[in-house]
Amino acid sequence: MTGTPAPQPPLTAIPGDLQSLSDYERRAERHMPPETWHHIQAGAGAGTSLAANRMQFDRYRLVPRMLTDMQGATTGMELFGLRHAAPILLAPVAYHRLAHPQGELATASAATALDTTMVVSTLSSIPLEDIAQAARAAAVELGRTAPPPLWFQLYVQPDRAYTAELIHRAEAAGYQVLVFTVDASVKRSDFTLPPDVDAANLRGMPRLSQNASAAGGQIVFGTPLLDAAPTWESLAWLRTATKLPIVVKGLLSPHDAKRAVEHGADGIIVSNHGGRVLDGLIPPLDALPAMVEAVEDRIPLLLDSGVRHGTDVLKALALGARAVLIGRPQVHALAVAGMQGVAHMLHILRAELELAMVQTGCARPAAIQRHHLADGS
Amino acid sequence: MTGTPAPQPPLTAIPGDLQSLSDYERRAERHMPPETWHHIQAGAGAGTSLAANRMQFDRYRLVPRMLTDMQGATTGMELFGLRHAAPILLAPVAYHRLAHPQGELATASAATALDTTMVVSTLSSIPLEDIAQAARAAAVELGRTAPPPLWFQLYVQPDRAYTAELIHRAEAAGYQVLVFTVDASVKRSDFTLPPDVDAANLRGMPRLSQNASAAGGQIVFGTPLLDAAPTWESLAWLRTATKLPIVVKGLLSPHDAKRAVEHGADGIIVSNHGGRVLDGLIPPLDALPAMVEAVEDRIPLLLDSGVRHGTDVLKALALGARAVLIGRPQVHALAVAGMQGVAHMLHILRAELELAMVQTGCARPAAIQRHHLADGS
Amino acid sequence: MTGTPAPQPPLTAIPGDLQSLSDYERRAERHMPPETWHHIQAGAGAGTSLAANRMQFDRYRLVPRMLTDMQGATTGMELFGLRHAAPILLAPVAYHRLAHPQGELATASAATALDTTMVVSTLSSIPLEDIAQAARAAAVELGRTAPPPLWFQLYVQPDRAYTAELIHRAEAAGYQVLVFTVDASVKRSDFTLPPDVDAANLRGMPRLSQNASAAGGQIVFGTPLLDAAPTWESLAWLRTATKLPIVVKGLLSPHDAKRAVEHGADGIIVSNHGGRVLDGLIPPLDALPAMVEAVEDRIPLLLDSGVRHGTDVLKALALGARAVLIGRPQVHALAVAGMQGVAHMLHILRAELELAMVQTGCARPAAIQRHHLADGS
Amino acid sequence: MTGTPAPQPPLTAIPGDLQSLSDYERRAERHMPPETWHHIQAGAGAGTSLAANRMQFDRYRLVPRMLTDMQGATTGMELFGLRHAAPILLAPVAYHRLAHPQGELATASAATALDTTMVVSTLSSIPLEDIAQAARAAAVELGRTAPPPLWFQLYVQPDRAYTAELIHRAEAAGYQVLVFTVDASVKRSDFTLPPDVDAANLRGMPRLSQNASAAGGQIVFGTPLLDAAPTWESLAWLRTATKLPIVVKGLLSPHDAKRAVEHGADGIIVSNHGGRVLDGLIPPLDALPAMVEAVEDRIPLLLDSGVRHGTDVLKALALGARAVLIGRPQVHALAVAGMQGVAHMLHILRAELELAMVQTGCARPAAIQRHHLADGS
Repeated sequence: MTGTPAPQPPLTAIPGDLQSLSDYERRAERHMPPETWHHIQAGAGAGTSLAANRMQFDRYRLVPRMLTDMQGATTGMELFGLRHAAPILLAPVAYHRLAHPQGELATASAATALDTTMVVSTLSSIPLEDIAQAARAAAVELGRTAPPPLWFQLYVQPDRAYTAELIHRAEAAGYQVLVFTVDASVKRSDFTLPPDVDAANLRGMPRLSQNASAAGGQIVFGTPLLDAAPTWESLAWLRTATKLPIVVKGLLSPHDAKRAVEHGADGIIVSNHGGRVLDGLIPPLDALPAMVEAVEDRIPLLLDSGVRHGTDVLKALALGARAVLIGRPQVHALAVAGMQGVAHMLHILRAELELAMVQTGCARPAAIQRHHLADGS
Repeated sequence: MTGTPAPQPPLTAIPGDLQSLSDYERRAERHMPPETWHHIQAGAGAGTSLAANRMQFDRYRLVPRMLTDMQGATTGMELFGLRHAAPILLAPVAYHRLAHPQGELATASAATALDTTMVVSTLSSIPLEDIAQAARAAAVELGRTAPPPLWFQLYVQPDRAYTAELIHRAEAAGYQVLVFTVDASVKRSDFTLPPDVDAANLRGMPRLSQNASAAGGQIVFGTPLLDAAPTWESLAWLRTATKLPIVVKGLLSPHDAKRAVEHGADGIIVSNHGGRVLDGLIPPLDALPAMVEAVEDRIPLLLDSGVRHGTDVLKALALGARAVLIGRPQVHALAVAGMQGVAHMLHILRAELELAMVQTGCARPAAIQRHHLADGS
Repeated sequence: MTGTPAPQPPLTAIPGDLQSLSDYERRAERHMPPETWHHIQAGAGAGTSLAANRMQFDRYRLVPRMLTDMQGATTGMELFGLRHAAPILLAPVAYHRLAHPQGELATASAATALDTTMVVSTLSSIPLEDIAQAARAAAVELGRTAPPPLWFQLYVQPDRAYTAELIHRAEAAGYQVLVFTVDASVKRSDFTLPPDVDAANLRGMPRLSQNASAAGGQIVFGTPLLDAAPTWESLAWLRTATKLPIVVKGLLSPHDAKRAVEHGADGIIVSNHGGRVLDGLIPPLDALPAMVEAVEDRIPLLLDSGVRHGTDVLKALALGARAVLIGRPQVHALAVAGMQGVAHMLHILRAELELAMVQTGCARPAAIQRHHLADGS
Repeated sequence: MTGTPAPQPPLTAIPGDLQSLSDYERRAERHMPPETWHHIQAGAGAGTSLAANRMQFDRYRLVPRMLTDMQGATTGMELFGLRHAAPILLAPVAYHRLAHPQGELATASAATALDTTMVVSTLSSIPLEDIAQAARAAAVELGRTAPPPLWFQLYVQPDRAYTAELIHRAEAAGYQVLVFTVDASVKRSDFTLPPDVDAANLRGMPRLSQNASAAGGQIVFGTPLLDAAPTWESLAWLRTATKLPIVVKGLLSPHDAKRAVEHGADGIIVSNHGGRVLDGLIPPLDALPAMVEAVEDRIPLLLDSGVRHGTDVLKALALGARAVLIGRPQVHALAVAGMQGVAHMLHILRAELELAMVQTGCARPAAIQRHHLADGS
């Protein structure tokens, strides 16, 4: 299109002015076609949830405990019996090849370099087996025995046989945790994938058109798409279909948190899908405390949506999350500088978290408590 | 006037960038003379109520219940024994011909097409009988047995004989519910109707001048206009004058809600008249919960003023409203694209409501409850 | 000064676009020299009190009672046994001749025309006797037996004999209430009166220089100016020096309200001096409720600072004030159009108050109650 | 650098438009190189703590007590048995020679002229002995027997022998209070000192590089810098190393306040280091009340960070602080006009405090109480 300059290619070295996740976000726009940039950044509706996801952290101030002895301090922690180097994971994000030609291969290598778990999306633009292989290869190159634990995110597909096959492929490829996303089965989107990007894991799988007409005078209700949306029964089925830990992603109420426990979930990701699905949804940090209370420590809760600073991680943990996931920043860093960018972005966030822990006197993630927060003014 | 371009004629096809009620609002200005646009958009005084009407919805966040089975979901509901396809009605708005040459005829056809109840204003620019006829004709054309229920809005006129005649005309024309507006008998306005637009229903009826002088050194008090303003006695009289359900529009206090029940009202529309009458009035969503409590389910409460999104409808219902009315968006859509515009605008709002119900797990309007809301941060 | 256009002369007719007190404020700047404009408008320090004085009213929303019978409605009320046509008074403002050559003479005539009490300042630029005479002359011209009650504002001067003389002059000239201002004895100002404006009532009276040096290494403490500042003892003395009702202006705490009652005050004006004296003072509407409770109906409280709309008056009365005073708007209207301007400004405010009373269902000032307000969102 | 004008030299006379600390701040940028200006002004991270430090004061409104007798009023007070002329101290600020060639010598002379205590930083750009000497010389010149009490701020250095030597030097030079800063041992900075500015007190002392690599895959944790950070044990040691009163600077929680008392601290400076260390820390005014309650009057608390107005001092004292410290304004005034600037800035702040005390009716610092504040709206 005349007037729109072509996106700049990814950088091959990190400039000195990229010092925060916000710096990457500001820079990323130049490295993506406008429609892709808009698709990545957009929130649903008027964007109030998108904004609220950022402001949720500003409601809290940090109350430090000074002069703490930090000998032997660590960010390491366990989830589902697996060691994670820090309470920061890469959230499932579709189609990394929208941001960079190497797509999820670059992300997986960077995540491995920073000892960070990547949650690979059902809608990855590289087959899930190849991503796992890239993670293992990066570990070997770094002289480690194994990459950090790999997780796989699942949209339950209308055809359960296909879904079961997808699960078995993930298990076979070495994924150790399944994330069942429940909040995005019906949504509006005008975005069309470019011809060289597709849902690599779903090739050959039957998919529902979003344009089927509705029944009974309704517009959305009664469409095949809606009828195929997952229900609690889907979770019950999933529980029988795999032995891997199942983490339900997209819950926001104490009621649903309890039901998830009852249906055998091993964890919950509290998320409003980055403000992308329904405008006005409660920000996850606001939803978290009541959900933590509801599950009574039976399963861990993780927090997704809006995390951009090390202090955000600390705030989420202080309110009861066991870890956080970051979404869009992966895409920003990938677009700016590929594998190097993602590795650097993760390094920034980890360094910020460690500094925040030092300055508040928390030598381990579990030491981060509610008394480290005060309500903001 | 030199320098002011003539308004653009209504569009004959809907452009792709009209995707929300806000899009229609932004676009509508081009399709109306400036003084009409200002008249439609203006709020009283400094406009704080107008702004508060929008912000009232932002005070609440949505708390979804995920994984709900949505088989057989519907927006349909009953009011006064009449089936309504969705809890969304077109509020009474005066003089549709200010926005489009076909005026209320276009609106009624569009409302019928979307199976939506229109509340026809006493101050319609087309005779009420012709509007009802347009609705029936549209139903026939769509192969339906009848249009959605038609409601008629009444300003009680100083002369009760004339008012009674107006009621009988509405009854004879097939209107099934009467809306008695109580909050706009005395207000300031500088707007003058253009020569080709008039109050079609009131032709030949004696009307009070707003310029009569006041008594006793007061400025407003003691004017004939004020002396003719409706009182609770007017409602008592109206109760004797018709067998149709009577809905009182413009109440904002629990005290008045109770009195309305005592005087035989069948419903209440909680409204601050779109912020047009007195600046600083409580926004209806703030007033609603105490009023719901006051009437103790004896009659339904509806909410008017500020609704622009499907999630707004959901929030109003969660706080106890049985349905909502939308005002200015009718005018915007009518000015932009006539009948097609109104139909499209209603389609957008309905689709948004259905999506919001899906994403919060509400399969019927009655399933929308207070626990679906959290206070905003 | 080159580049600054000379102020425009006062208008001789009111243009149609002056429809609110804000319109007068916006217009007034053109009619005053910049340094005078700045002096009138300025708040102390960073201006936070000035801003808070406006925002204090936005904290409340109006909850109307509809369908009330308004036959015989009136704004009239009594204070200290004197009938006042409305609960709106002109606050004491120094040096009206800064705004218009006729100064307080024009203001007094306008106030009489609108049957409004003027509180004449000790620092008037016209002798207090001439102002009283102008009010009486205006009443005669309007065919009335007397002007509305005139009040006189007193700064207690360092020399009590002079102060006593001032009181006797005010009594002799027919002033019926004394306002004792207590909050402005020590403040900073860079403004210099132009040569043709002076404190007409104080000609020949000894005055303290503000530049006297301080004692004991302090900067303000120990200066003669501070030592001459009024104390509770001054009020006790004043109580013996006059039989007129005494209203203390400038209190903001329940503690001081009680002490004023104990020292024989007949009324209190709750005021932060329009945000001019100390930045950060509590806005009077915030201070009012606790003060009302403290005085237990023994004396009336009035509210000053920030009133600009009829609904502001209603809000102040709902929170317990018996009347309000308006300050800067007098100066704005005087500068824009002299006597006509002040009369028109008062007419606007009165009309707005009457409309607000109609629309909330209050037929008398005493009918305005706390239940007419809700907290803003 | 082309395009950046050289900084202006310090002024030799104070222009009339410098009337507040904000005026100095606005002016100072012109008198410093851009990178120094940025270094002085910057807050950590997104700057939310920096902004919150200012806004913390706006949460409170002043509730005056009028008509108080102010004979004999004073700002004077005692701390640790030493008389201080006002509850305002100069906070420790590193490297004054960044702002002015005379550095701490100019500041000390100005502080003495205004009878104000200066807290000299370990990181002063002039040897601590020379600063003390400048203060004494200024006192002699003013005909006083002694300068106001001098305090010395200590970063506990990794090598305790060196730290002990520093303490003995400070004692020998006449410093009477030690301030132990605990909140800045590990932080990020890109700023490099210019060649003519150094840490004059630490010449010859071994220092840790901030670039040492971390242990165990962590980024900050396990670095030598972190291992050398002070702990409660450091305070216990310090208590044995000096007989001077010890004030711990940088605590923000009631828990730490109690521990400081238990470890023998004589006072606490509640501070978030001007928002420079960790973004999101609680503003000190928010932290203060719970800390005051925790220490139960056993030791005095002082407040640092964000004070810019006389009313800020009054608010801090009303919430329980015994005195306040001001940081950046010293640097601004020093850059603008050297010794004269600092003296004028202190004069402004003292005059503002005295005016605020007059206008709220407080004749002594101890008279300033919680009832002088109301929550802001």
